[in-house]
Amino acid sequence: MGKFIGSQSIQFDKSVYILGAGSIVGKKEGDGPLGKYFDKIGQEDGLFGCRSWEEAESTLQKEALSIAVSKTGIAQDDLRLIYAGDLLAQTIASSFGIMGFHRPVYGLYGACATMGEALSLASMAVAGEFGEYVGAVTSSHFGSAEKEFRFPLGYGNQRPLSATWTVTGSGACILGTRRSHVRITGITTGKIVDFGLKDSLNMGACMAPAACSTIEANLKDFGRVPEDYDKIITGDLGEVGQRILFDLMEKQGISIEGRHMDCGIEIFDKETQDTHAGGSGCGCSAVTFASYILPKIAKGEWKRILFVPTGALLSKVSYNEGKSVPGIAQAVVVEHC
Amino acid sequence: MGKFIGSQSIQFDKSVYILGAGSIVGKKEGDGPLGKYFDKIGQEDGLFGCRSWEEAESTLQKEALSIAVSKTGIAQDDLRLIYAGDLLAQTIASSFGIMGFHRPVYGLYGACATMGEALSLASMAVAGEFGEYVGAVTSSHFGSAEKEFRFPLGYGNQRPLSATWTVTGSGACILGTRRSHVRITGITTGKIVDFGLKDSLNMGACMAPAACSTIEANLKDFGRVPEDYDKIITGDLGEVGQRILFDLMEKQGISIEGRHMDCGIEIFDKETQDTHAGGSGCGCSAVTFASYILPKIAKGEWKRILFVPTGALLSKVSYNEGKSVPGIAQAVVVEHC
Repeated sequence: MGKFIGSQSIQFDKSVYILGAGSIVGKKEGDGPLGKYFDKIGQEDGLFGCRSWEEAESTLQKEALSIAVSKTGIAQDDLRLIYAGDLLAQTIASSFGIMGFHRPVYGLYGACATMGEALSLASMAVAGEFGEYVGAVTSSHFGSAEKEFRFPLGYGNQRPLSATWTVTGSGACILGTRRSHVRITGITTGKIVDFGLKDSLNMGACMAPAACSTIEANLKDFGRVPEDYDKIITGDLGEVGQRILFDLMEKQGISIEGRHMDCGIEIFDKETQDTHAGGSGCGCSAVTFASYILPKIAKGEWKRILFVPTGALLSKVSYNEGKSVPGIAQAVVVEHC
Repeated sequence: MGKFIGSQSIQFDKSVYILGAGSIVGKKEGDGPLGKYFDKIGQEDGLFGCRSWEEAESTLQKEALSIAVSKTGIAQDDLRLIYAGDLLAQTIASSFGIMGFHRPVYGLYGACATMGEALSLASMAVAGEFGEYVGAVTSSHFGSAEKEFRFPLGYGNQRPLSATWTVTGSGACILGTRRSHVRITGITTGKIVDFGLKDSLNMGACMAPAACSTIEANLKDFGRVPEDYDKIITGDLGEVGQRILFDLMEKQGISIEGRHMDCGIEIFDKETQDTHAGGSGCGCSAVTFASYILPKIAKGEWKRILFVPTGALLSKVSYNEGKSVPGIAQAVVVEHC
């Protein structure tokens, strides 16, 4: 159970706990600043033993969810529902990745905000008593994403400094009613926000207005100030998007600079890894959450955070037809207990 | 609130009502056997005043949801959550269609089963008291779907008799706690079922095993026999898929022939409309449900039905990489009250 508060948030009366999490990433992510936190790291070729990037991405989801299930100490069949999504057309990475679990599935598309959406819907399922153990999993893959959205890798296009590098990785969480040290106490559902930007190589700018909208709504709906959160953590705004977010929030009279963190900025070392504005993809926030953020909350190092994965809503077709790139951000309040 | 029963179903203790619905279709669908039931019918060109099929499909979603909102007698701003999805890559029809409502959104991808998924998640939101008015909307468009999955229309490819014709249309429902004559009393979440079929021009065959799996699970979980439903209504199996479904169910010792109906078979007249195996697309089951099925339940002509939209999980990429086409089916129990 829960109750809706304010204009777009839900506060959970019943406890929703995160019981286990799993993360797997590619070699580049493993070489980055968060390398030591991930459960599994792949080889240089990014194929994870598969024949295509799409198959590799499916394998990532399978692995991440398997790790999460095993860390939760449950059997695969105990999973009552799985919420899964990715960036590929018709979310094939999820379909082929999750299929082998033979569990009930709802497929999601929330662009790079999908982990926020998956955690939100999984929380609602647990709080509504619709499932004892509910999984949330998302992934992205540099190779499959470049093919899906941009240029063939072999073409070797130059990337502007505003571009982000799609994270190869998958993160999964198991939510349930069984007590743990991490609770989801509320969510704020995002609205689609369109500032009319059209540059798919500057997605941080496209997503920042949505991040601002959702964070602002969260603070208002819950009657909080930024200081009520130890960290406000966006998904993959990168450095360009972060600056825009700060500016937009300042205009609303809210300063989050002291406590803002962006998974896309954390996951790569831009000096040595040539990733420009940062990491992106729905794997980016998912693996950072599962491996780095969650343990800090479990240990009580952070008491309460706002996790806000951010997504850019575009496709090759919408881009080529001259449409703008609207953004969406899905927020989850996570607390130590 | 609710409780999970059996292996993959949820029974709702709290009442979840369908309060209003809207449907809009293209000219071909308007000329079909269900023509008189739809709220709005477009012109021959299928563009609905837009410049591209994708924009047209977005317009369909906007129209269908607006009609549903107005029939429910609420303001747009009363919508607490919207669950929206479509077939296009990165579900752009939904993003651009729903954006203008400025309401909290969760994007879904469940292939042609998306209306079942949207109704299921909207039911969970209402039953969990997470929203007083919750929208569910999906769409498909013949032009945008052929471009997305098959050949350019101008190429004029021949379609085998097993192929279905993607419905141009969008259907929307508003769910809530306010009493009406139509209740959603339970759902059965689908598992992904893969029989290894690879023919994207015979999607009925690809989806039939999933329909069988979900219907069987529903009957078992709720302890029912087919006779407990006035109708068991699949989404878009078409004639080929229907025959396979009957065969598969017979093997399980269950006969549904007397009470089975398929939206894909109902929506077109195959003798005069050249649609081969039937209609398909997530608009197919959505518009048939919103315009034809729902009023029959509201009037009490049907007391209890099982609505089972069916989806084929493929993309151009998965198809071209030689992958199979797994299926999924999401079931909703709808009753007169």
